[in-house]
Amino acid sequence: MKPVNLTEKLKLFSDHWNPRIVGALNGQHVKLAKLKGEFVWHSHAEEDELFLVVSGALKMEFRDRTEVIKTGEFIIVPAGVEHRPVAESEVEVLLFEPDTTVNTGESDDPRKREDLDWI
Amino acid sequence: MKPVNLTEKLKLFSDHWNPRIVGALNGQHVKLAKLKGEFVWHSHAEEDELFLVVSGALKMEFRDRTEVIKTGEFIIVPAGVEHRPVAESEVEVLLFEPDTTVNTGESDDPRKREDLDWI
Repeated sequence: MKPVNLTEKLKLFSDHWNPRIVGALNGQHVKLAKLKGEFVWHSHAEEDELFLVVSGALKMEFRDRTEVIKTGEFIIVPAGVEHRPVAESEVEVLLFEPDTTVNTGESDDPRKREDLDWI
Repeated sequence: MKPVNLTEKLKLFSDHWNPRIVGALNGQHVKLAKLKGEFVWHSHAEEDELFLVVSGALKMEFRDRTEVIKTGEFIIVPAGVEHRPVAESEVEVLLFEPDTTVNTGESDDPRKREDLDWI
């Protein structure tokens, strides 16, 4: 039960597409990640996923359109919906999602991360 | 699946201790609230609760100590832990908690809010 400072936690790592866990509640994880470039198209069979942009502007591609999520905005991607995050410049995001969520979802991609580190 | 802008949503209301719902995922709600003054001591029997401070500085009193959560910081209050939010000046917060959570928890207080509005 200590305050968690997002800026300070984000200073602790610099790699992209490798989320860190910063909180857990109600079977959900709070994660921070740095994104740059194009991720893989994927979906999560069971998990809805929230992306809150802490800095930068994130493009979220869907099969039928693209949304831009700016700093101070969030988007919720429901389970089963194919999406691809694209960050033309580095984007810092906070994620809220079930603790079972794998970053690459149902897809096969070398950037898959499991057993994420707590910071 | 549209971006939600926290600042724009916060402009839509001005009353205190009356959370609004701005998102739902995985049985959880994302809420925004404006806090000012001292709330009631309470706990939530089943629900962990996350407070992310969007503006201002929130004091979270526990029975054995007080934490100050500043803008850009969050705190998680586990189920069953008595707490009292205190905002000496107005504080804007994002809440992430199960959709069953009632703001006043197990306590009896006139500021109890149920059937929250979506904005």
